[in-house]
Amino acid sequence: MNILDIIDKKEKGAILSKEELEFIINGYLNGSIPDYQMSALLTEIDLLGLTDQETINLTDIMLHSGDVLNLGDNITDKHSTGGVGDKTTIVLAPLVASLGVKVAKMSGRGLGHTGGTIDKLESIEGFQTSMSLEKFKKQVSDINIALVGSMGNLVPADKKIYALRDVTGTVDSIPLIASSIMSKKLASGAQNIVIDLKVGNGALINSLTEARQLANLMIKIGKQYNKKVACVLTNMNQPLGCAVGNSVEVMEAINTLKGKGPADLNELVIKLGSLMVSMALNINENEAESMVKENLYNGKGYTKMLEWVNAQGGNINNISASKHVKQIIAPKDLYISSINALKIGKLARKIGAGRLTKDDKIDLSVGIILNYKTGDFVLKDSPLATILYNDKIITDEEVLSCFTFSEKPVSKPSLIIEIIK
Amino acid sequence: MNILDIIDKKEKGAILSKEELEFIINGYLNGSIPDYQMSALLTEIDLLGLTDQETINLTDIMLHSGDVLNLGDNITDKHSTGGVGDKTTIVLAPLVASLGVKVAKMSGRGLGHTGGTIDKLESIEGFQTSMSLEKFKKQVSDINIALVGSMGNLVPADKKIYALRDVTGTVDSIPLIASSIMSKKLASGAQNIVIDLKVGNGALINSLTEARQLANLMIKIGKQYNKKVACVLTNMNQPLGCAVGNSVEVMEAINTLKGKGPADLNELVIKLGSLMVSMALNINENEAESMVKENLYNGKGYTKMLEWVNAQGGNINNISASKHVKQIIAPKDLYISSINALKIGKLARKIGAGRLTKDDKIDLSVGIILNYKTGDFVLKDSPLATILYNDKIITDEEVLSCFTFSEKPVSKPSLIIEIIK
Repeated sequence: MNILDIIDKKEKGAILSKEELEFIINGYLNGSIPDYQMSALLTEIDLLGLTDQETINLTDIMLHSGDVLNLGDNITDKHSTGGVGDKTTIVLAPLVASLGVKVAKMSGRGLGHTGGTIDKLESIEGFQTSMSLEKFKKQVSDINIALVGSMGNLVPADKKIYALRDVTGTVDSIPLIASSIMSKKLASGAQNIVIDLKVGNGALINSLTEARQLANLMIKIGKQYNKKVACVLTNMNQPLGCAVGNSVEVMEAINTLKGKGPADLNELVIKLGSLMVSMALNINENEAESMVKENLYNGKGYTKMLEWVNAQGGNINNISASKHVKQIIAPKDLYISSINALKIGKLARKIGAGRLTKDDKIDLSVGIILNYKTGDFVLKDSPLATILYNDKIITDEEVLSCFTFSEKPVSKPSLIIEIIK
Repeated sequence: MNILDIIDKKEKGAILSKEELEFIINGYLNGSIPDYQMSALLTEIDLLGLTDQETINLTDIMLHSGDVLNLGDNITDKHSTGGVGDKTTIVLAPLVASLGVKVAKMSGRGLGHTGGTIDKLESIEGFQTSMSLEKFKKQVSDINIALVGSMGNLVPADKKIYALRDVTGTVDSIPLIASSIMSKKLASGAQNIVIDLKVGNGALINSLTEARQLANLMIKIGKQYNKKVACVLTNMNQPLGCAVGNSVEVMEAINTLKGKGPADLNELVIKLGSLMVSMALNINENEAESMVKENLYNGKGYTKMLEWVNAQGGNINNISASKHVKQIIAPKDLYISSINALKIGKLARKIGAGRLTKDDKIDLSVGIILNYKTGDFVLKDSPLATILYNDKIITDEEVLSCFTFSEKPVSKPSLIIEIIK
C-alpha cells in the first residue's frame, strides 16, 4: 500500500477500504506518513466527504489507536461541540449525579475563546483535575461523579489529527467531527451519551442541515457499539447564559444549581439532564424531567456539587476574581435584537480568558457578563454588560459592536431546536 | 491576511485575489507557510480548480519569484509534458538550429522512468550540461544552439511547489501544470514556445478533454506576455520511437538525424520542427515543413548536432554502453495490439534507467529497445524487444506483460492527435 495511491484513489471519488484507512492512521501516528500528505488527504475528505461506512471504520481505527477504558457498567456521559459561555457540564454533572446517574467524565482544556471545562474548574482554589484511574473509579462508585482532564492514552490518533486539522482548515468536516467525537466518547467507556450539538455563528456548525447530518452519523456510529446516543441541537447565535470566561462561568454554574440560573441555561440543563437520567435509570423522559427539575431547585444538585468539589480538593469559597470591573452602558432605550456569540468570545479571549496557541496562559479571573440577552428591553444608561479584567482591556465600542438593537420589540429566540435520537 | 482564512475562502469556492496568491507563494517560499498548509491549498486547487484569471495571476507571481532571463530576441523553445522514450529535443533542437532558429534551452533531469534530456546527453562522454550565462548566450549567437541543465535562479517557487505536489497527489491539476510550465518557459526568455502535450496511459494527462483545456490555458497565459504558443497533442499510449533509456535514446536520436529514425519519431520531429521554424522565421508552415524534412534527410541536422556536441565538450563516438544484452522472443506469429508505455517505463527504471528518489543514481547505459511497435506483425521466435542491462535484470514475463497481441491485423495508431494554437 502506498499513500500516494490512496490520495489518488480518494481524489477519483472511490471508497477507501478499512485496510487503507488503517494504513493511513497508523502511518500518520508512527510518522511514516508526513503532515503534508495527511493534510492532502484531510482536505480531500473535507471537500468530498466520506461514506457512513468509511466514517464508521475510521472511528473504529481511531478508537483502537490507544487505551480503551472500562469504567464499569452504565456510565453516562455528556459532550458539547463547544460554544461561547458553555458551562453546562459544571451544572449538569452534579445535578444528574444527585439523582443516581454515574458520571465519569474526561474534559478538555480546549483552544477556544475561553478555557475548557477543566480550565474553568481550576478557577476553584485547590481543585484537582488529574488523579489515578483507581481513585477515579472509586470516586464514581462512592459519590457518582468524577471529572478529570485526561486518563490514560486515549485516542492518540485523534490528538495528532485534530492538531493538524486545526491548522489546515479541515475542522468543519462532518465525518471528521463525528469520528473525532465518537472515538473519544467510545474510548472513555460511556454506555449512554448525550451530545449538545451547537448550531449558529458561535459554533463550528452553522447550518441546521449539517447539524442533522452530524447527529444522525454519530447516532449510527454509536449503534455499532450498542451505545445509546441522543443529540440535542441547540442555538449558539448568542452566548449561553450570561457569563463568558472561566471563574465567572463557574460562579454562574453555582448560582444555577442554587435555582437562580439564567432561563436559557436552566432550559438546557433540564433537557440534557432529563435525557441522561432517562437513559441511565431506564425511565421515561417525563418522569426524568420532574426529577431533574426537583433537584435543580431543591438544592440537592448544589449539595452534590459541594461534595464533588470537596472530593477533588477544591475550596468553593475561593474562586479567582479579577482586579477591575467596568460597566458598558446602554446608549438609549432599546430592545436587543442580537448578541454575536463569536465576537463576544473573541473579546473574552482578548482580555485573557482564552488561548490562541497551546502555550498561552489563561487568566482565569477575567470575563464578560451580559446583563441582558436577545429580546430583552434595556433602559438608557443601564449596564448592558460588565467587563471583569486585569491588565488587558477592551473598549466600549468593541463590546457594543457585538450587539444589534431594535426600537421595536424582539421575540426571544428559542434555545432548543430539536432532539435527535 | 491569514493562510487559514484563505484556505477557508477557497473551500467555499470563492476566487482568490492576486494579493492572496502572492501572500501564499511568498509565504511558502520564505517558510512562513508550512508544507502541510500549502498541501491543503494545493489539494483544494486540485479538486476545485482555479479560474483562468487566478491561473494567470499565479503564473505571473511564480515567474517573478526568481530571475527572469533576457537571452536576446526571437529565441524559440520546445517543451514536452513528458513521456516514455521521449528523446525529441535531442533531434529537434539541432535540426531547427540548422535552419537558423535560435534554440537556447534549459532542460531537466526529471524524476521519471528514465532520465531527463540532461541525463540522456550526459551519456555522451564529456558533454557539459552547465556553463556561464555569457558562454550560453555566445554559443547561441555563434551556432544557434545551446542546452543546459539550469541557468540562474529561475522560478524557485515552482521548484519548491513542484516538489510538494510530487508527494501530495497534486501533479495532475490542469491549472497547476499550466502555471508551472508557463512560468518556467516565460522566465527562460523564449519568444516562441512549442509544447508537445502527451496524452495517454504513459503521460500525466490521460484524457483528450483535459489535454485541450491545458493547451488552451497555456496559450491564453502566453498571450498575456505577447508570446507565440502552439500545442501539439500527441499519443502517449505506447513509447515514442523504439529506444527507452538514456544512451539508447541518444543513439536513436543520432540515427534519426541521419535519416534512419522510426516513423513516429520522424513524424513528431517534422510537425514540431515545422511549427518552430514557421514561428521563428515568420514563414508559412508548409514552407517550414519542406525545410525541416530536407535537413532531416540531407544530413545538415546531423552536422549541426556534431557542432553542438563538440561546442559543449562531448565526444559523440563514445556513448555509454551496457555489459549485457538479452533478447525477448515472440512466442508465436502475432500482431501487436498495444504496448503499455507506463509499464515499459517502469521496467526501464527497474534495470536502473530512471530515479525513484532525487538521490538515486541513474545507470545511463541500460535500456529497452522495442524492435516492433503497435500494429506490427511479428513472426514466432523473432526478437520482440532487446534488454541492455548491467547488474539489474528483468524477466521475459515482465517484458511480455507490457504487450497485448492479436491474431488479426491491427491498425497503427496515429501519433499526432491535433494542433492547438
